[in-house]
Amino acid sequence: MLTLEDIQAAARRIAPYIHRTPVFTSQGLDRLLGHRLFFKAEHLQKTGSFKARGALNAALQLQNPRGLVAVSSGNHAQGVAYAARVLGVPALVVMPEDASPAKKAATQAYGAEVFDQGVTVENREAVVRQLAQETGYTLIHPFDDLRVMAGQGTQALELLEQVPHLEAVLVSVGGGGLISGIATVIKTLRPECEVIGVEPEGANDAQQSLQAGVRVRLEQAPRTVADGVRTLVVGEQTFPIMQRYVDRIVTVPDEVTLEAQRLMMERLKQVVEPTAGLALGPVLMDYDLPQRLAVIVCGGNWMPT
Amino acid sequence: MLTLEDIQAAARRIAPYIHRTPVFTSQGLDRLLGHRLFFKAEHLQKTGSFKARGALNAALQLQNPRGLVAVSSGNHAQGVAYAARVLGVPALVVMPEDASPAKKAATQAYGAEVFDQGVTVENREAVVRQLAQETGYTLIHPFDDLRVMAGQGTQALELLEQVPHLEAVLVSVGGGGLISGIATVIKTLRPECEVIGVEPEGANDAQQSLQAGVRVRLEQAPRTVADGVRTLVVGEQTFPIMQRYVDRIVTVPDEVTLEAQRLMMERLKQVVEPTAGLALGPVLMDYDLPQRLAVIVCGGNWMPT
Repeated sequence: MLTLEDIQAAARRIAPYIHRTPVFTSQGLDRLLGHRLFFKAEHLQKTGSFKARGALNAALQLQNPRGLVAVSSGNHAQGVAYAARVLGVPALVVMPEDASPAKKAATQAYGAEVFDQGVTVENREAVVRQLAQETGYTLIHPFDDLRVMAGQGTQALELLEQVPHLEAVLVSVGGGGLISGIATVIKTLRPECEVIGVEPEGANDAQQSLQAGVRVRLEQAPRTVADGVRTLVVGEQTFPIMQRYVDRIVTVPDEVTLEAQRLMMERLKQVVEPTAGLALGPVLMDYDLPQRLAVIVCGGNWMPT
Repeated sequence: MLTLEDIQAAARRIAPYIHRTPVFTSQGLDRLLGHRLFFKAEHLQKTGSFKARGALNAALQLQNPRGLVAVSSGNHAQGVAYAARVLGVPALVVMPEDASPAKKAATQAYGAEVFDQGVTVENREAVVRQLAQETGYTLIHPFDDLRVMAGQGTQALELLEQVPHLEAVLVSVGGGGLISGIATVIKTLRPECEVIGVEPEGANDAQQSLQAGVRVRLEQAPRTVADGVRTLVVGEQTFPIMQRYVDRIVTVPDEVTLEAQRLMMERLKQVVEPTAGLALGPVLMDYDLPQRLAVIVCGGNWMPT
């Protein structure tokens, strides 16, 4: 199980290599939405997302790694590439052949090698295990790893220092690494603060899993604009932490996610990705939410086309 | 003439109503562009642009104004609307009938009344003078007013405190209000720091005016993506200040302005308008520029369509 002490140790370990990200507020947005909102700006984190925290916390605990390897066509790829650069070792990232050239280029720009020959969404897990064996590089899982979760949780330590009297935190949920780390901090230090997960409608595997008491796997990759949370099932290790600490999971339709993203760009003047908009989504809907809310702005790796 | 003392007084006067905006940096952008860059984040100012500073400094010096009136289809409209709200008086903004509905709505959202009936680019100055007379409201000029210039200059006081050893400041130039205020501060307190104005190619009336020694008026409204600097001629009052303090004016083609805007969004994760991109433009070109450069990010009132 993940403990507060693990996360405090992670914070000390990664501190030299990450930003303590600011918290944004907007009086106009508060008036418009009827809540006091605090936006934790992880889109300003190294690599443009919180993923740098978890990847670094895992990588910095390895004994003389030869290199790092990961499966990702998103922010975890850049997190691992950055962690490898900090360690001074190579990084290899497995992506499906049909991943966007922009994502491949962004990962390469962080110094990683992209492996995509013959890779599909279906075979990529097998490919990465084989590559790890061949190269001797260490696999960094995007969420189902206590060291990764501990790294992601470090932002909640900052958040509690930055915002007094928080009543709830809204967190986008994919595999559950982010919310597991954050919930462990919040429920240990300030148990009265609600931890609310947010999933896209039609990709609510975490919600279903918590209701069923067992992990529920989606039958096919969900179609959603929130490309950071397209996992089929929450992790074996994240699930018990979510069961213990997450108060509830709510869902948001894609059109609300996009409207929330637009509002954050218009009012905060921040470039945020749709999955960050997802976390604000519930505030635009009819959910019963407390007054003082933190929204985790998970990333900003998005460009208008 | 404008003095440092005027600007220091303006800073004290407007301090309760404006943000001391942060300065952004990006190691990645510095590596890419080969300069140490400091971005003064006026897109995070009240109303999303520096214009709130000048409008407020003028408005706060009026004796019992009945209301404020302005001609603007851009950021000055919102600056004046905000200043009127601070004073608790009405604001009336004159815009051409064919100005975008989005701009009219944004100005109304700040509490101003938009007057556009029969208004064209050609007759709007006459319309606003007549309206001022009829209503008794006070006209706030967008740039050719020493109080407005003093307000805009206050950001340079902050900048010099925030960034040591600055070698140059890059400033977009329209009517010259922004650069007059900034140059007065820089050349009084740190004369060795270059003040460089930036104009779009084909809208270089300030550059021509400084070369000719007299104000040169463009024959028609310039077509440029940098919609914040579409003035025909610099001001009567800004011109002598620019002659005295501005080191040089450089020009940037629109495609470089857009590329610079894109880079700022991608690397800084900040929503900035094309006219802010214009100020970074020279760094992407062959101009001989010193190492440590401040870029004035004049505004962020822009949305991807």
